[in-house]
Amino acid sequence: MAHALRLAECGLFTTQPNPRVGCVIARGEHVLGSGWHERAGQPHAEAHALRAAGAAARGATAYVTLEPCAHHGRTPPCADALVAAGVARVVVACVDPYAQVVGAGIERLRAAGIVVDVGLMQAPARELNRGFMSRIERDRPWLRLKMALSLDGRTALADGRSLWITGSAARGDVARWRARSSALLTGAGTARADDPRLSVRLAEPQPFVPPLRVLLDTRLDALPVDAHLLDGTAPTLILHAPHARPAHAGYARAECVPVACHGAGLDLHAALALLAARGCNELQVEAGATLAGALFAAGLVDELLLYVAPVMLGDSARPLLRLPALAEMSARWQLRTLDQRMLGDDLRLLLRPHRGD
Amino acid sequence: MAHALRLAECGLFTTQPNPRVGCVIARGEHVLGSGWHERAGQPHAEAHALRAAGAAARGATAYVTLEPCAHHGRTPPCADALVAAGVARVVVACVDPYAQVVGAGIERLRAAGIVVDVGLMQAPARELNRGFMSRIERDRPWLRLKMALSLDGRTALADGRSLWITGSAARGDVARWRARSSALLTGAGTARADDPRLSVRLAEPQPFVPPLRVLLDTRLDALPVDAHLLDGTAPTLILHAPHARPAHAGYARAECVPVACHGAGLDLHAALALLAARGCNELQVEAGATLAGALFAAGLVDELLLYVAPVMLGDSARPLLRLPALAEMSARWQLRTLDQRMLGDDLRLLLRPHRGD
Repeated sequence: MAHALRLAECGLFTTQPNPRVGCVIARGEHVLGSGWHERAGQPHAEAHALRAAGAAARGATAYVTLEPCAHHGRTPPCADALVAAGVARVVVACVDPYAQVVGAGIERLRAAGIVVDVGLMQAPARELNRGFMSRIERDRPWLRLKMALSLDGRTALADGRSLWITGSAARGDVARWRARSSALLTGAGTARADDPRLSVRLAEPQPFVPPLRVLLDTRLDALPVDAHLLDGTAPTLILHAPHARPAHAGYARAECVPVACHGAGLDLHAALALLAARGCNELQVEAGATLAGALFAAGLVDELLLYVAPVMLGDSARPLLRLPALAEMSARWQLRTLDQRMLGDDLRLLLRPHRGD
Repeated sequence: MAHALRLAECGLFTTQPNPRVGCVIARGEHVLGSGWHERAGQPHAEAHALRAAGAAARGATAYVTLEPCAHHGRTPPCADALVAAGVARVVVACVDPYAQVVGAGIERLRAAGIVVDVGLMQAPARELNRGFMSRIERDRPWLRLKMALSLDGRTALADGRSLWITGSAARGDVARWRARSSALLTGAGTARADDPRLSVRLAEPQPFVPPLRVLLDTRLDALPVDAHLLDGTAPTLILHAPHARPAHAGYARAECVPVACHGAGLDLHAALALLAARGCNELQVEAGATLAGALFAAGLVDELLLYVAPVMLGDSARPLLRLPALAEMSARWQLRTLDQRMLGDDLRLLLRPHRGD
C-alpha cells in the first residue's frame, strides 16, 4: 500500500478534479502490475495496474489507495474490471465518499466473492486527497492559507509593498504548492497592491492542471484594465456582490459570478460552496490580513503554510491577520506544527488549527 | 582542543565575570591531565590540568582555549606555571583581549623556549566567550534579546498580559540561557505589566552565579513596593535618570544608579557601558516592544533568542518590536538564522543581525 500511495502521488499536479489514486497488484511480495490515475477522463489506477498484470492478476491481491469506483463515469467501473480479472483479494486504504461510490465499489467486489479489507494506511491515503475528501464530505475545498512574513509577523510595508520578503527557494516551493491546488484565491486589497499573476512557475517543468484563479472583488473595481488577473493566461473567476457592476470592460475577460453578501463583504461560506460545486479540491489562499483574518476567524482555514523570512519590518508594517481582539490569553487561536524546515534563509512552517479534539 | 572546549563549557554557568576556559595536557593522543576554570577566585583551567598531569607534563603539549594569563590576579600567572612544569608546546585557541594579558602570556611562554601555536578552533573558542570578548573589546556586554511570541509576531494581549505564550519546555530552556547570563535586563513597561522575577529556575539543580537583575526605570516609579524585583532574592540594579526620586522607600532594597538620558529615555549606550564596567559579559534582555525595539534599532542587539508559540493573537495584540517605519523594503532589518529547533510545541530560533559583511 505504501508503494501504491507513492504511485498515487505521481498524480499530485494532474488529476484535478479527481482524487489521486495508486494501485499495485501483487502476489505475496511479487508485484505483477501497478499504476496511477494521471488525468481526469483517462484510465483509473486500477485499469493501468490490471493491464500491466494481464492474466497474472487472477488470484492475486490488488492494493488500491481509494475504493474502486462502481459507476460509469468517463471510464467503466473499476470494481467490475477487478472482478473480471479474477483478483482474489482487494485491500483498500479508504472509502470513496463520493455519492456515486461510497461503499458501492466494495459491495460489488464482495458480491463477486472477492475478499475486501478496508483501512490499511487510511490516514496517509486521506491526507493525500484531503482536498477531494473535503469537497465531497464538507461541500467546501480544503483551504490552505499561504503567507510570507517577517520574524515580527509582518507581510508588507505600511503602503502594502511586499515584494519580496522571502528568497528564491521559498518562492520555488510556493510554486509546487500552487501546482497541486485546484484554485488560487486572493482578495481585492492584494490585487490592488501587488497585481498578482497567481500563476504556476515551476523550477523544473512538469505537467500540471493550471489552477483556477479566483478573486473576491465585492464591488468589481479592484482590477485595472491591464491587471495580470485579466491577462487571459489562466481561467479566472471573479466573485462579487449581487448588484455590482464592473468598473470597466476588461472584466469581460474573466468569468464574473455573484455571491451573497455577509456584512461588508462576500459570504465566505457561500464562496467556498460555489468553488466546491465547481470541483475545487485544494484551495490555496494568498491574501492580505483582512481576508486571511476573516477566513481564519471563521474557522475556514484548514492549514497554514507560512514562510518566515529572517527579517524585521517593524510595527508600522502590515499585520499577518486581522482578528478580533482577545479578551483572555486562554482564547488565543492554537495551532499544531506539522512540519518545519529551512528553505534557503527562510523557515517554512506547515500548521493546522488545533480543533481541541 | 575540541576536548578542551567541551571542558570549558562546564564553567558556562559559574565563571562569571571570568571567561570560560578549558585545558588539556597531552602527549600525542594520550591525555595526561585536564581541567576547566570553575569559579572566579578559584584555580584556572591550566592549574587543574597541570596538577592532574604532575611530572608527566614535562615535554608534553598543553591545549588551552584562551591565552594563559601572565599577571598576578587572585591566582598566580598560568604562563609561569606552564613554564615551570616544562611543557614543550602550548596550543592556544584565541588570544585573551584583557588588557593585562593580550599577548603577554604567549610572549612569556615563547621567551621560555616553549613552542606556541595560536588560532586552533579560534571561532568556537571566541563564541563560547562572546560575552567576555564583547566586554573587553567593545566595552559593552554581548546583548541577547529573548522574546516569546506568537506566529503573528505578538508578545502580549493589548493590555500587556503575556503569561504564558510558550510551553514548559521553552521556559525551561530560557532558564538555562538565564543561568549563563551575567545580567538580566528589563524595562519599566514589562516591570509594570508582568512583575517579573528575573530569577533562574533550572529544571535540574546545578550551580550557577545568580545573574544581576537590571531594570531601566527612568523615573524610578515602575515598581510597586511589593514588586518581585524588590524582594532581595538576587542582586538588583535599577538605572534611572539623573534627577529621578524613588516613588517609595521600597527602592532602597535595590541599588539605584543614575545614567545619562538620551531623548525621552536613558542613554542605552551609557547603560551598557556601565554594565560592562561592572563585569557584565552576557546580558539577556527580556523586555517589551519599546525597549527591545530601541536596542534593536540602535544596533545594540547581538543575538535574538525567539520562542515562537503555535498560536495567533491577532493584530490588536502587542507587537514584537517598535521600530521606525521603513520607507523601502530594501531597508528591512536582515538577520541570519544560527539555529532552529522545536521545544515541545514551540519553535526556538537563534538569530543574529546581518552586519552586511
